[in-house]
Amino acid sequence: MFREEIKVLDCTIRDGGLINNYHFTDDLVKATYRAACDSGVDIVELGKKLAESDEYTREKYGRWNFCDDDDLNRVIDAHDSEHRPLIAVMYDVGRADIDALQPREHSPFDMVRTASYVADIDKGLDLCKRSKDQGYLTTINIMACSAVPHADLIEALQQVNETKEVDYLYLVDSYGAFYSEQVTSFLKLYREHAPDKALGFHAHNNQQLAFSNTQQAIIDGVNLLDATINGIGRGAGNCNLELLLNFLKNPKFDVAPIYKAIQEQFVPLREEIEWGFNDIYGISGHLNQHPREAMKFRKDKENMDNCYDFLNKSLKLDG
Amino acid sequence: MFREEIKVLDCTIRDGGLINNYHFTDDLVKATYRAACDSGVDIVELGKKLAESDEYTREKYGRWNFCDDDDLNRVIDAHDSEHRPLIAVMYDVGRADIDALQPREHSPFDMVRTASYVADIDKGLDLCKRSKDQGYLTTINIMACSAVPHADLIEALQQVNETKEVDYLYLVDSYGAFYSEQVTSFLKLYREHAPDKALGFHAHNNQQLAFSNTQQAIIDGVNLLDATINGIGRGAGNCNLELLLNFLKNPKFDVAPIYKAIQEQFVPLREEIEWGFNDIYGISGHLNQHPREAMKFRKDKENMDNCYDFLNKSLKLDG
Repeated sequence: MFREEIKVLDCTIRDGGLINNYHFTDDLVKATYRAACDSGVDIVELGKKLAESDEYTREKYGRWNFCDDDDLNRVIDAHDSEHRPLIAVMYDVGRADIDALQPREHSPFDMVRTASYVADIDKGLDLCKRSKDQGYLTTINIMACSAVPHADLIEALQQVNETKEVDYLYLVDSYGAFYSEQVTSFLKLYREHAPDKALGFHAHNNQQLAFSNTQQAIIDGVNLLDATINGIGRGAGNCNLELLLNFLKNPKFDVAPIYKAIQEQFVPLREEIEWGFNDIYGISGHLNQHPREAMKFRKDKENMDNCYDFLNKSLKLDG
Repeated sequence: MFREEIKVLDCTIRDGGLINNYHFTDDLVKATYRAACDSGVDIVELGKKLAESDEYTREKYGRWNFCDDDDLNRVIDAHDSEHRPLIAVMYDVGRADIDALQPREHSPFDMVRTASYVADIDKGLDLCKRSKDQGYLTTINIMACSAVPHADLIEALQQVNETKEVDYLYLVDSYGAFYSEQVTSFLKLYREHAPDKALGFHAHNNQQLAFSNTQQAIIDGVNLLDATINGIGRGAGNCNLELLLNFLKNPKFDVAPIYKAIQEQFVPLREEIEWGFNDIYGISGHLNQHPREAMKFRKDKENMDNCYDFLNKSLKLDG
């Protein structure tokens, strides 16, 4: 598949950090940035931009939950490259200190992505507006759209469409519940009610469909695609960046640096933290549930693979 | 997705046996058969039907490489069930003793599947004819079609079409190389040159696409689908049966017995043998290579995850 407009966003650190509270080594973050540079990825998201507080400390929540300028600059300056991807960070509604946001020209990052539930869409769009006022590229990533009343989602989409400060509207499969037909029908809905917005897609791999659903989004015309190195991400993880670059025939991409980073950094990391498909996440995705129950279940090392027990427990919770 | 005509074939033992030379315990084979009965699966393939010889002994090659009547009957008789799936076995061209095949009414199995390369299609179709003469349902599974000259494949398809003794023609993604667009285009070719044959589909999971490609085959009208419990199978494995049954909305299927078998039999088996996606198989699939190089690479426990090295080695082999 080749389409010149397609852009790839590597959210390895931001989504992967949900597993280990953003306690990545500098080496790993630098290797991820280097891989993004050398592979020709368009945008790399290096973490979240939380407000520090007594509850949310850097020690407990890790450096890449805050993305201070000094930390970002140290990573960026460590690799000299012809190709420099744009740098993104993510805001969570309710945990952002928007007053502290410097103008883009004084900042190491270029894009602010705002993750928002439908219920918080006003607050989410306010963050987009104020980020755009400071010169940033902006996205609004509507979470858990598969578990929201249809009318509420439509209203949120219409609000997004009316907000000129939003550059990209993201379809996010938060629960890993989509089959390709849901990708298509949600995208149709998003286009119908937010026709002025460019679209992005963010998958989860609960049912081994993150990569194929991303392909479906491409087929359906989406031009901004999230993926992570080796599929790292909360629970079942994300679309594997290496598989996606293999699929995209665009000569601007080179997959080899991604495999190099996997071999040198992510294979060793797997000895410390777990991600990727298993049947517990498969059930959770199929039942369109928040992954928190599945993640909790996986913490009991003795019974973590008891998928039959998890199915029965989940069906009882559901009904 | 619901379509009444769709049938599911569980090839857990036959494809899984390629990993461990068919040395499954009776308990595991019985649990697989029981799960097939209780979940409503239509057909269950319990192994290969090789000719025994000095080279191919039961001790070395395992009981389920031979599927003697006594072995099959012991499994079938161990579970009393209202629903009885059809039993299938597989012939490999060149290693089958067709003269020993008893008439279906004297046999515990119902279907003979013949795996054949395009180069051996005459021999493969002869096995189909002689199996049909004895009353069996028959399939021809053309292997490695993604690595065969187009004209040769077309000729083979035309021969299949002219062989009235073939009940099902299988599209097989032997190398795990297909994206959904290849599924669609091969199926179009198969329909064009073998219009009289019902079609089946058999996927491999090298690029995390076994399940989604099986969905694509369904969308494209295929009604006989292969899958295995927990995706067990050579290399990256197959389409996960549990994911497929979740996707198929047909009330005749019940997925719970499959999860039960996974929890009780296949989770423990994973401590002995490995299957499923990793980046080595992903590269192998993307490059449309026979999985033997990838499997060989995975045997070196020290370096088995060195995907960057494998990529470089494979590209050298290719070019």
